[in-house]
Amino acid sequence: MAASTAASRLSPPRPRTASPPSTPPRRSRFSPLRAAKMEAVLSVGAHVIPHPRKAETGGEDAFFVDSDTGGVFAIADGVSGWAERNVNPALFSRELMANSSAFLKDEEVRHDPQILLMKAHAATSSVGSATVIIAMLEKNGTLKIASVGDCGLKIIRKGQVMFSTCPQEHYFDCPYQISSEAVSQTYQDALVCTVNLVEGDMIVSGSDGFFDNIFDQEILDVIAESPGVDEAAKALAELARKHSVDVNFDSPYSMEARSRGFDVPWWKKLLGAKLIGGKMDDITVIVAQVKTVVIPDDEGSGVEQEQGSELGTGAAVVSAE
Amino acid sequence: MAASTAASRLSPPRPRTASPPSTPPRRSRFSPLRAAKMEAVLSVGAHVIPHPRKAETGGEDAFFVDSDTGGVFAIADGVSGWAERNVNPALFSRELMANSSAFLKDEEVRHDPQILLMKAHAATSSVGSATVIIAMLEKNGTLKIASVGDCGLKIIRKGQVMFSTCPQEHYFDCPYQISSEAVSQTYQDALVCTVNLVEGDMIVSGSDGFFDNIFDQEILDVIAESPGVDEAAKALAELARKHSVDVNFDSPYSMEARSRGFDVPWWKKLLGAKLIGGKMDDITVIVAQVKTVVIPDDEGSGVEQEQGSELGTGAAVVSAE
Repeated sequence: MAASTAASRLSPPRPRTASPPSTPPRRSRFSPLRAAKMEAVLSVGAHVIPHPRKAETGGEDAFFVDSDTGGVFAIADGVSGWAERNVNPALFSRELMANSSAFLKDEEVRHDPQILLMKAHAATSSVGSATVIIAMLEKNGTLKIASVGDCGLKIIRKGQVMFSTCPQEHYFDCPYQISSEAVSQTYQDALVCTVNLVEGDMIVSGSDGFFDNIFDQEILDVIAESPGVDEAAKALAELARKHSVDVNFDSPYSMEARSRGFDVPWWKKLLGAKLIGGKMDDITVIVAQVKTVVIPDDEGSGVEQEQGSELGTGAAVVSAE
Repeated sequence: MAASTAASRLSPPRPRTASPPSTPPRRSRFSPLRAAKMEAVLSVGAHVIPHPRKAETGGEDAFFVDSDTGGVFAIADGVSGWAERNVNPALFSRELMANSSAFLKDEEVRHDPQILLMKAHAATSSVGSATVIIAMLEKNGTLKIASVGDCGLKIIRKGQVMFSTCPQEHYFDCPYQISSEAVSQTYQDALVCTVNLVEGDMIVSGSDGFFDNIFDQEILDVIAESPGVDEAAKALAELARKHSVDVNFDSPYSMEARSRGFDVPWWKKLLGAKLIGGKMDDITVIVAQVKTVVIPDDEGSGVEQEQGSELGTGAAVVSAE
């Protein structure tokens, strides 16, 4: 096979380049130096496609989008294993999202997704468990994220993924989850991080049923081709759904399964079979674009807040396909 | 090949599990609710191995570690393409790190890695360019990160990667970089994010020469086996170095090159050759562990700050192997 390092074998050779192409100046930023001049808001689209066998009940994912604080959204994915105990896995995730949305009126939590998660969890009385991600955009462009489990969030800037959350799990297919049970994770186990965003940044967030069935390059391609956030969310969900039911698609999920040592049964292996295929699951996608609104007065009480019609306020609305 | 989805073909089948194993309570956290009781500091180890052909000059990576603010470290990777213009690529990265370290005395920048980068860049007079990452741990456990280009940083908690930066690039092997030239990126192009850390979290940061030659699972394994941060940094650098000169190692770099469409020349391809191998480069690794120090008095001026002997304050010291 090879006889030299990759660096010397690229064809044609491409040295590490010292002169990057010139970059057009950005129209705006939310850096601390200029924060007084503008505010960041989100334009949000969302799309949900339930698991094929759960289409009638709407699946077990839940989400909400709220525009009152500049842009807050959240996704909860009810853990399906509860069905084996005759518990509807959708109840916990839906109540958690309803409570999260309700608590946003509380000044203490509207700037802290981790505390919002704590309060919403404490107020949830349904039996069950869920993975959850909450994201809040501050007016200065800071996105605050709290995530427990394997819902995901990626930020796209200039056609590349510049930020991505990592899933948390106990072992393969058993994610961190908040639950009605005392042994579960809590808000304290959340990955809590903030990212400074600029105008034009795109946020793509979803349940694991989305990220398990789509590759980053596909997400970038769909985002680049979509005229708006609604179209992007729909196209992304539909592409992930297509992959999820494709037994020949080598999905991120099946690649991960193989890398963990899972495989087809030995007798299938003898016949040359390989562990591939999509992963059937509820698929929730939220796509949000960072926009600016100009404040006419520096000290302005009269803030001109953009609240697009696509920003639906309300809790736990799982809009089935 | 396959005839069913991955989910149905795992052997043995492992349903999405509702009951996670019970988790022992953590000894301490830095959540806002408990911040008054303790402070977070870093125990830091670092190791540098220059490119095999640059061993005499020490290579073009530079870094610094400073313990005065609880834990600040930074890495700059001088862009090697400048050598073609008869410019020593190490000068810019070393001066940038020296300036960054010096500006830490400035109250305005000691809590903002992006502003530190702005000031250090403005003060750097050498010709050249560099990728750069700066990380600052606040006493409440918040890690602040600013990164331009493809230096990386990962956070490991309970044996898994729970946070990772993404590289920024113009195209393959041409990373975002700050430079002596006006067309380059600036502090405003940095990925700026913060992550809330807890006691025991491990931070692994490095130049691209490190992350291009090692996989996440290898990092996790070395961290798990190492008795301390110094040993971990050394072992990680040595493993990446071993891979970097291994023409048969299918490195993250060669995998990425193939995924971008690079390949061996056609005549080698006809002979069955594949683009694999490590990437020879300067390798810098910083390993930091989050520790707590207890504050005897809640309002305490008498803060018992842990400053381990492994925390070297000083700028741009590239310690060659």
